Amino acid sequence: MSEEKQVKLFALNSNLPLAQKIAEELNVSISEAEVNHFADGEIQIQIGESVRGAEVYVIQSVADPVNTSLMELMIMVDALRRASAATINVVMPYYGYARQDRKARSREPITAKLIASLLEMNGVDRLITIDLHADQVQGFFNIPIDHLLGAPLLANYFFTRKLVGDDVVVVSPSHSGVSRARKFAELLKAPIAIIDNRDDENNEAGPSSIIGDVAGKRAIIVDDIIDTGLSMSASSQALDFAGAKEVYGVATHAVLSANSVEILRDAPIKELITTDTIKVPVEKQFSKLTQLSVGPLFALAIERIHNNEPIEDLLRSKDNEDVQL
Amino acid sequence: MSEEKQVKLFALNSNLPLAQKIAEELNVSISEAEVNHFADGEIQIQIGESVRGAEVYVIQSVADPVNTSLMELMIMVDALRRASAATINVVMPYYGYARQDRKARSREPITAKLIASLLEMNGVDRLITIDLHADQVQGFFNIPIDHLLGAPLLANYFFTRKLVGDDVVVVSPSHSGVSRARKFAELLKAPIAIIDNRDDENNEAGPSSIIGDVAGKRAIIVDDIIDTGLSMSASSQALDFAGAKEVYGVATHAVLSANSVEILRDAPIKELITTDTIKVPVEKQFSKLTQLSVGPLFALAIERIHNNEPIEDLLRSKDNEDVQL
Amino acid sequence: MSEEKQVKLFALNSNLPLAQKIAEELNVSISEAEVNHFADGEIQIQIGESVRGAEVYVIQSVADPVNTSLMELMIMVDALRRASAATINVVMPYYGYARQDRKARSREPITAKLIASLLEMNGVDRLITIDLHADQVQGFFNIPIDHLLGAPLLANYFFTRKLVGDDVVVVSPSHSGVSRARKFAELLKAPIAIIDNRDDENNEAGPSSIIGDVAGKRAIIVDDIIDTGLSMSASSQALDFAGAKEVYGVATHAVLSANSVEILRDAPIKELITTDTIKVPVEKQFSKLTQLSVGPLFALAIERIHNNEPIEDLLRSKDNEDVQL
Amino acid sequence: MSEEKQVKLFALNSNLPLAQKIAEELNVSISEAEVNHFADGEIQIQIGESVRGAEVYVIQSVADPVNTSLMELMIMVDALRRASAATINVVMPYYGYARQDRKARSREPITAKLIASLLEMNGVDRLITIDLHADQVQGFFNIPIDHLLGAPLLANYFFTRKLVGDDVVVVSPSHSGVSRARKFAELLKAPIAIIDNRDDENNEAGPSSIIGDVAGKRAIIVDDIIDTGLSMSASSQALDFAGAKEVYGVATHAVLSANSVEILRDAPIKELITTDTIKVPVEKQFSKLTQLSVGPLFALAIERIHNNEPIEDLLRSKDNEDVQL
Amino acid sequence: MSEEKQVKLFALNSNLPLAQKIAEELNVSISEAEVNHFADGEIQIQIGESVRGAEVYVIQSVADPVNTSLMELMIMVDALRRASAATINVVMPYYGYARQDRKARSREPITAKLIASLLEMNGVDRLITIDLHADQVQGFFNIPIDHLLGAPLLANYFFTRKLVGDDVVVVSPSHSGVSRARKFAELLKAPIAIIDNRDDENNEAGPSSIIGDVAGKRAIIVDDIIDTGLSMSASSQALDFAGAKEVYGVATHAVLSANSVEILRDAPIKELITTDTIKVPVEKQFSKLTQLSVGPLFALAIERIHNNEPIEDLLRSKDNEDVQL
Amino acid sequence: MSEEKQVKLFALNSNLPLAQKIAEELNVSISEAEVNHFADGEIQIQIGESVRGAEVYVIQSVADPVNTSLMELMIMVDALRRASAATINVVMPYYGYARQDRKARSREPITAKLIASLLEMNGVDRLITIDLHADQVQGFFNIPIDHLLGAPLLANYFFTRKLVGDDVVVVSPSHSGVSRARKFAELLKAPIAIIDNRDDENNEAGPSSIIGDVAGKRAIIVDDIIDTGLSMSASSQALDFAGAKEVYGVATHAVLSANSVEILRDAPIKELITTDTIKVPVEKQFSKLTQLSVGPLFALAIERIHNNEPIEDLLRSKDNEDVQL
Repeated sequence: MSEEKQVKLFALNSNLPLAQKIAEELNVSISEAEVNHFADGEIQIQIGESVRGAEVYVIQSVADPVNTSLMELMIMVDALRRASAATINVVMPYYGYARQDRKARSREPITAKLIASLLEMNGVDRLITIDLHADQVQGFFNIPIDHLLGAPLLANYFFTRKLVGDDVVVVSPSHSGVSRARKFAELLKAPIAIIDNRDDENNEAGPSSIIGDVAGKRAIIVDDIIDTGLSMSASSQALDFAGAKEVYGVATHAVLSANSVEILRDAPIKELITTDTIKVPVEKQFSKLTQLSVGPLFALAIERIHNNEPIEDLLRSKDNEDVQL
Repeated sequence: MSEEKQVKLFALNSNLPLAQKIAEELNVSISEAEVNHFADGEIQIQIGESVRGAEVYVIQSVADPVNTSLMELMIMVDALRRASAATINVVMPYYGYARQDRKARSREPITAKLIASLLEMNGVDRLITIDLHADQVQGFFNIPIDHLLGAPLLANYFFTRKLVGDDVVVVSPSHSGVSRARKFAELLKAPIAIIDNRDDENNEAGPSSIIGDVAGKRAIIVDDIIDTGLSMSASSQALDFAGAKEVYGVATHAVLSANSVEILRDAPIKELITTDTIKVPVEKQFSKLTQLSVGPLFALAIERIHNNEPIEDLLRSKDNEDVQL
Repeated sequence: MSEEKQVKLFALNSNLPLAQKIAEELNVSISEAEVNHFADGEIQIQIGESVRGAEVYVIQSVADPVNTSLMELMIMVDALRRASAATINVVMPYYGYARQDRKARSREPITAKLIASLLEMNGVDRLITIDLHADQVQGFFNIPIDHLLGAPLLANYFFTRKLVGDDVVVVSPSHSGVSRARKFAELLKAPIAIIDNRDDENNEAGPSSIIGDVAGKRAIIVDDIIDTGLSMSASSQALDFAGAKEVYGVATHAVLSANSVEILRDAPIKELITTDTIKVPVEKQFSKLTQLSVGPLFALAIERIHNNEPIEDLLRSKDNEDVQL
Repeated sequence: MSEEKQVKLFALNSNLPLAQKIAEELNVSISEAEVNHFADGEIQIQIGESVRGAEVYVIQSVADPVNTSLMELMIMVDALRRASAATINVVMPYYGYARQDRKARSREPITAKLIASLLEMNGVDRLITIDLHADQVQGFFNIPIDHLLGAPLLANYFFTRKLVGDDVVVVSPSHSGVSRARKFAELLKAPIAIIDNRDDENNEAGPSSIIGDVAGKRAIIVDDIIDTGLSMSASSQALDFAGAKEVYGVATHAVLSANSVEILRDAPIKELITTDTIKVPVEKQFSKLTQLSVGPLFALAIERIHNNEPIEDLLRSKDNEDVQL
Repeated sequence: MSEEKQVKLFALNSNLPLAQKIAEELNVSISEAEVNHFADGEIQIQIGESVRGAEVYVIQSVADPVNTSLMELMIMVDALRRASAATINVVMPYYGYARQDRKARSREPITAKLIASLLEMNGVDRLITIDLHADQVQGFFNIPIDHLLGAPLLANYFFTRKLVGDDVVVVSPSHSGVSRARKFAELLKAPIAIIDNRDDENNEAGPSSIIGDVAGKRAIIVDDIIDTGLSMSASSQALDFAGAKEVYGVATHAVLSANSVEILRDAPIKELITTDTIKVPVEKQFSKLTQLSVGPLFALAIERIHNNEPIEDLLRSKDNEDVQL
Repeated sequence: MSEEKQVKLFALNSNLPLAQKIAEELNVSISEAEVNHFADGEIQIQIGESVRGAEVYVIQSVADPVNTSLMELMIMVDALRRASAATINVVMPYYGYARQDRKARSREPITAKLIASLLEMNGVDRLITIDLHADQVQGFFNIPIDHLLGAPLLANYFFTRKLVGDDVVVVSPSHSGVSRARKFAELLKAPIAIIDNRDDENNEAGPSSIIGDVAGKRAIIVDDIIDTGLSMSASSQALDFAGAKEVYGVATHAVLSANSVEILRDAPIKELITTDTIKVPVEKQFSKLTQLSVGPLFALAIERIHNNEPIEDLLRSKDNEDVQL
């Protein structure tokens, strides 16, 4: 990286392994900050080295414990601003609360916007993230967002494993995810099918029908988040019942809450391909679960941003350059 | 309406007939404001009566000429604020630029958010609108939004005309509109199908395939906006080719730009059901085009808001109360 | 309460018993709001009844789990604002993070100010709280603060129990708490003493000396917060060693974190008088612990605020009206 | 220009010839941006090259079509900010709506301030403009304004053509423009006269009398804007009637709306000297009309600003350096 | 005044006699506030009665000592906001620093805008003032301004004294004040003349010529502010020299700084008509000086504002209703 | 100092000697700015040299005349911002109004916060100050504060003069100052005593008792501000009465208002050690008064800040490095 302006990388607690990967790719070490969690639940942070005039990148996923991770980040940003950091760039591989992005019913909050307002109010200069639940969340911000895409990485896995071809169908597990599935399908040059679930707002999955042809095909269910696993599991069962020959699951963010691991382990899914935007603890890892690292991608983005170079080409798939993602 | 607090209704130039309907439903007259467009293109507004301490509702669709309509609104709001209006409530039946709600490519603006920021910065207290292109646009605002829904009104037309039943299929003309179509289908208790268009970002329509069964059915294409008419027309042709027995088109907002009227007149569409959120000039009206008025709905909303009563029930279909829209 | 303007009381999860007491005193019922904590740690709130045009009071202590309590509050406020509440008044009996009110060392945050900024940015109109760690925290806000005082209530306990008189000495457990102790001493017309601890910034207590006379006296240690119990315990031991005949502990906020209960139970303290600003779970209650309720005080404050009446007299002790607290 | 920090020049549609002149003077090329005007009137912009970390100058006059030009600018600024431009400098040779700079009557807007607020809210860092209708418009902004002056350029034309001397009188066409005329007169070392129009607020011109001596003199009418031409034309007729031997008209901004060209062609004006702050289409150019280019002046200002050098000397006339403009 | 909403009037120290007049006209008493000026120069304010929920009007001219008057106001507003006033309306008969309304030279402040920003930032809801030096200062604010006019009151004095008629000429003492003089002339149905001073930016007056006819006439010099008296004095001398038969001086704001009283006493001015927007101490009052009270006008404005009635008719002259001021 | 980025130092009128010392230490000259105080009390500033792109430091204590000093600063900052300064750093050795940092009684302002808001609103980027009355004032700001400490400098005086040792006791003159005294005592490795004044909120001093041992000792009274001198004087008398062998007074800020000099001269104080954060005019200097210069400390801080180096070590005493101040 160019050395004229000092870059400092900080990592908070939610996803230290990914932070470590990013630092290694960038060939810098993670700067020191003491983050204490007191017995009464309060967080105290002291930054261990001068950040005066530095271009600071703070890596933190807003993942379980969501609220604590968010407050760690907010407090760190307050400390950085008061300590005269030149710019504060938040690297947020997983944007918690992103699904609460609209009022689905009367008198609901729009918590994804609240998070955006909190960050902006606190003096954050830039957000670097990947695969927001809805693209519109970018508009919740006035600061620049560098919004990376996981699809090229995830699709590449299928190209590399030679799991592409005429027998592939990409499946959206919900109505609201069809555009996402469609883009993935374009990368793989495959048709799409849709799980037609009556009520896909909730985590619960009811009886489903399928729109589109899946019989005898290799079905790849594409979603952005695997949370309870219920949607992915129900979709795989519906596909299995409809005669799909193999079912793969794809999702950028592996929340894997509650007993999702059991549910997914028991579902007729051959392999689940996700990334490391969220740290999956050892006890939640299982044989079907493949985690691709977004570390190199984030490192490349940080380098480009630091050098004032465009990141446009990082948003394209090398396996299928024609597709506008 | 309750009389303790004074309400004033103003109408700018983009959709006077709808404003007149709302005023009639509310049994109030539209307050006076002189809006001049000078020879050099500048707009000058003078409000003709005192608004001091009044609860003001300004009715304006941001429709063609989009930029002029928006500036009329912005200038009016500035005048109202300086004239000591107690609250400024913008009634915007059509929210122009709503489709520019995310960065689809690098270095694009998010103009729908810009519009939101302009309104908030200017001191608008509330927005009342209907069928935003994406629900997430609500999150572009911090002020309260009363977001009405056209689906109950539009669906009711089909119930009233007895165009519902087992042979109906609701069709989404694009991947991104599947959720909208799915909800409409739930109201009609119908299945859905999807026009699988390679590139549905643009106004141009390429060759399409259809996911789902439409042969022999009454197909109802559901969209939010009819702009160039290309998407609606191409969808109807695909459905016709696929053996649909009848094709209806449904959309809340009738932009009808360019030669859309010719295109739609020639398309295999039996009837096009829209609303009057945008004023359709006489020369653009044609026999297939049905316009339902949202005037009573907006009037009811204004009355409820003024009386501090909930609008929740206005968001439900009386034909199918079970559905959460 | 006056009925012309509608008041709604909401209670979040951190201190429901106190909220219930406030509601009973006010003779209103707590309004409905569904607060879900999902398996992935995200909070979802839906307000169960219309708040349009209402004067809303939300009761929430920012207490353990501090970050979750804070986010519950933030999300609720977002929902209330979007649901057109006329005013949003936050009743925060315990203001978490209040002790992080300055940069004690380089590159620390000022988290108490961050909390203030979060609330203001979110549209909160007023804060009602009690015994802030430092009075200056009021200046972190631009909105009106109604800052109640616990001293009259706590002192009254000693008057009622006839524990006042010439043999009483009020003790500050730290240098930074002398003003607080001095005011309490004035209420009881008693002299003061000070525990001279080398380092009273931290929760840990080192060897202490005492400034002032305590031998043969009834010593009342006065603090605002009991957190780990270490400071209170060490102070009581020093007093005991210095010949105090009896030691009482007084503190408004009973955080009682970690193994504080064991520590305090074993300390030479006769009785510990606190309030219910923080909910003390059953397993943390012990025989020495007396909890006075601030419920009536908060209820009275809310009533006065609602009726646009001053709260000034609530800040005085009826046992000693001369003292300016 | 200094090369250490990257400068990018963008030109929107209202005055491309001037933008081209500025670019040529600076010896840089205009950066690429695609600006589409859709059939429905919406504008879509995509910036064609990276602006990350660049010092960007956007050239746009807010001239007819005023509202569209303004929205082009606003949308471009939104895109630039989101694309991580380091600074956004707006070069606005003509500031539309500048005449709406105060409430002349009750319940009018102050649109010139609205424009200022729009630009600031959108993240503009600096405005570079010339001859604002009222100097006070600078105070509508908090960001730095570089306010250039056209008088040295316009006066120089008279010096160069040897049209100065004892027989010259500078004429203000209205009461509100006397200070402007007085300064121009100082440059030319000439006396002034004033057209005493009953109502000079409006574009219409009534019967006028003249204060000051004009008989037998070369009268130079000085204004900032020629819009309808009525004021300039009526002034010239009054001067002609009062015995002026020759009448010249001077104005920085050539709006030339409606049938102004006919009016001015027929008026007893020998020559009309203006600048190119507004693009005058070929069909509006006529033999009496002289357009001096402000391109070199703006180019010089941009260069100075970029190099952190003062622009003070650009505000002086080389023909008469003593005058403080 | 209507009694449903509580009004409270406060008066700070700069112009207590005017505040008293306003209170008497409104038939209310001035509310209590203790304003201490400490020996070290700091101001301390304590409001003596509850303002919770009240509509507060604070009367303060920003006059000598300008900075202290301004800070008294700012501190009072801070106290009112924190004490839960419903609205804070600042009645500022004299707006100090109003003449610093533009950058006349490079690297100057725009202090009139700074004052506006200070008031808005501090939470002021409305400004009520009279005869701002430039109308554009209204645009420095986003809050509503009720801008009263002194001309009807001042002109009425001439009507009442029968000092109107064919022999009257209204004189502008500077180029920048011609519009002000022209409007006054219209009220009196008189022609105008202009003192043609080379440099009217500064307080110093050089040799002047006169544009327009004044010989044998009753000349009325019209200005907004009399500060050093130099401009008024030099103008009167020029008029005297040019053969005016009588010279009157008119100005709303009687700053009367330095030795202005001596200067004006010695000048060939018959009478100087001003108002009481600024308190003129006894030692500065002299026989030629007439002070008309704006108290009734401000009282009427406050009453109208409180009752949500327009103030439009207060801006017209009863002596000449046709004139649009 | 590093030369890559241009630094400019400006000094306003409240403490020119200190500004001169800082400039000399930095080996730079003070930049030119004309600051006029007009006869009517208004301040006018014109900056005499270009500040475009410069890192500007403005030195101004907000000291008597407090309000005028503050307005000089505010106006200067407005001028700097409009003149395109890159950063505006305010060096404020004495922060006036800092004692008004909380609402001590109902309906008081928090003027110290008002000052903070004024500075931030005006575009100040950084505050450099020393020994704020309460550390919490840092939290009134969102911008970075570099908060220097006077204790190392003041303590060093005692070390240098060999006035340390077993017979020293550090005395807090009030309850609220105990922490300050305690830290100073730690530096000197001395015990503390406290003047137990019934009402130490006010400037007046009543009869006092002493907590702690002072008989036969060298007592050093430590405060932050000497204003009226009453507290210092009363404390010295109490100490004298209690048998202290010698009394020294220490305070960073020498306000010395009213007749404080007489009071202190007559008090049983051997020497009064202060700094030059406030300019003490010659007529207020007296033999007991020692003024240490903070000039080198501020100069060092500015240099570090400019070079993006930490100032942490400037906050430590070289005489006793173990103490965390």
